[in-house]
Amino acid sequence: MTENKKVIPPYERTAHYYETDRMGIIHHSNYIRWFEETRIHYLEQAGYPYSKMEKDGVMIPVLSAECTYKNAVRFDETVLIYLKITQFNGFKMTIEYIVKGKENGDIKAIGKTRHFFVDSEFKPIRVKDKYPEVYNVFNDNKEEE
Amino acid sequence: MTENKKVIPPYERTAHYYETDRMGIIHHSNYIRWFEETRIHYLEQAGYPYSKMEKDGVMIPVLSAECTYKNAVRFDETVLIYLKITQFNGFKMTIEYIVKGKENGDIKAIGKTRHFFVDSEFKPIRVKDKYPEVYNVFNDNKEEE
Amino acid sequence: MTENKKVIPPYERTAHYYETDRMGIIHHSNYIRWFEETRIHYLEQAGYPYSKMEKDGVMIPVLSAECTYKNAVRFDETVLIYLKITQFNGFKMTIEYIVKGKENGDIKAIGKTRHFFVDSEFKPIRVKDKYPEVYNVFNDNKEEE
Amino acid sequence: MTENKKVIPPYERTAHYYETDRMGIIHHSNYIRWFEETRIHYLEQAGYPYSKMEKDGVMIPVLSAECTYKNAVRFDETVLIYLKITQFNGFKMTIEYIVKGKENGDIKAIGKTRHFFVDSEFKPIRVKDKYPEVYNVFNDNKEEE
Repeated sequence: MTENKKVIPPYERTAHYYETDRMGIIHHSNYIRWFEETRIHYLEQAGYPYSKMEKDGVMIPVLSAECTYKNAVRFDETVLIYLKITQFNGFKMTIEYIVKGKENGDIKAIGKTRHFFVDSEFKPIRVKDKYPEVYNVFNDNKEEE
Repeated sequence: MTENKKVIPPYERTAHYYETDRMGIIHHSNYIRWFEETRIHYLEQAGYPYSKMEKDGVMIPVLSAECTYKNAVRFDETVLIYLKITQFNGFKMTIEYIVKGKENGDIKAIGKTRHFFVDSEFKPIRVKDKYPEVYNVFNDNKEEE
Repeated sequence: MTENKKVIPPYERTAHYYETDRMGIIHHSNYIRWFEETRIHYLEQAGYPYSKMEKDGVMIPVLSAECTYKNAVRFDETVLIYLKITQFNGFKMTIEYIVKGKENGDIKAIGKTRHFFVDSEFKPIRVKDKYPEVYNVFNDNKEEE
Repeated sequence: MTENKKVIPPYERTAHYYETDRMGIIHHSNYIRWFEETRIHYLEQAGYPYSKMEKDGVMIPVLSAECTYKNAVRFDETVLIYLKITQFNGFKMTIEYIVKGKENGDIKAIGKTRHFFVDSEFKPIRVKDKYPEVYNVFNDNKEEE
């Protein structure tokens, strides 16, 4: 279990121009999209890309998403987004995020998303038995309580 | 106080094609944008458009945003988004949202955003004395506890 | 033919806050999305919504899109987008757009998109015989040369 | 002049999940955003990041943008976007783009954007004399006719 735990580097992301708004900062809605990119990056680094997971018949819809904004991010600023799987039972999952400025390490935002697992017919599933590869890629990296 | 309370109709919104994703539903990040549109609609209906508020020197940044997804919305589906000011003290504000399908009245999502008020230099302000018009447009429509 | 030609009103659209960028104007990429909304509005007004067309087995992918920007649009400004079908032969189609400020009538932008028709397997099709309803909704409103 | 010409590598970009639409491909409007990312990448590689250029008082608004779509890009596919400055006279500029699949080298799309230069008051300027660093970063890499 913990022997399989990989150290996944944070997701590195530079803010695009079109992600700014007239306040001169990155629009708050874009962080929810950055969390999705962070999940995709995590799975790719962990060895089971989400694109492959979808081809294997599993999708991971979002049950809820939240973000608290601490410090603005500006155009061309680079952030590092850290992801932690704080709850996973093969049926539901909670992921937490910390967005830090790459230059200063200042906390830009923190977030959380909750998920469930479905098959290609959108039917909720438990992945432990039928999709062990999916089960392990999350369970192996789950935070110990 | 309650005499000034206006009944603001819900914000009516039809989902755009480019808001869908390959799951065939509206991407979860777009609801956070819809909440922003709902706030803008609310202020316009209440008689003090946000564009005017910004010209008068007040901006309302987002402290946090969250959404819980109950039922998917699809391309060309129309939703009604109801907004409630659940906390307001002239310094901070909490707004809650319910997204309902226009056809069935089924709950699509619920959400919450928290805000603070700043001047054009981004300095946090209390709006009660200096910007009474801003204070009233939120206080008059606040939910009684 | 011309008896069936409907006068379709322009698409009315108010610019959202999240559509602005740090230049304080609507980001140029959003106009391409507005053109898509204008097409959807056109079909709905003409009596054959695109959502129904997709259910009937026809999709209309974009071959090309272009926009020339004349005058900036700002947050909360309302524009009227006029659409003209300048070429249609049941196989390919060209649509042109004029974006005007609602208040002044000033030309904000002009654009053009080109399209082809496919079935649900993404196979290119000629709609005249197999999908007469699709054929007519474009042919009836085509600009005379 | 040509001695200063740098070989700038293409911009590498993997398509995000939220960039797809219900057709299962990257929505056509996103390519216009990718072209903007490609310009930002170009300037960073050429030694004069756009964020610095804006701080030095020069902005580069878009006069027009166009894209022709040849082959779809899908979620998690990586493309390489090549940029060529095909016209530049210190006052106006034309940039052309080729989007190729990283795996196959197949052409996904081609595009073009036209630009002019303004100061921080949005006044059109000629950059040759007043902003030689801006002038050179484009002139040095212009395509010979």
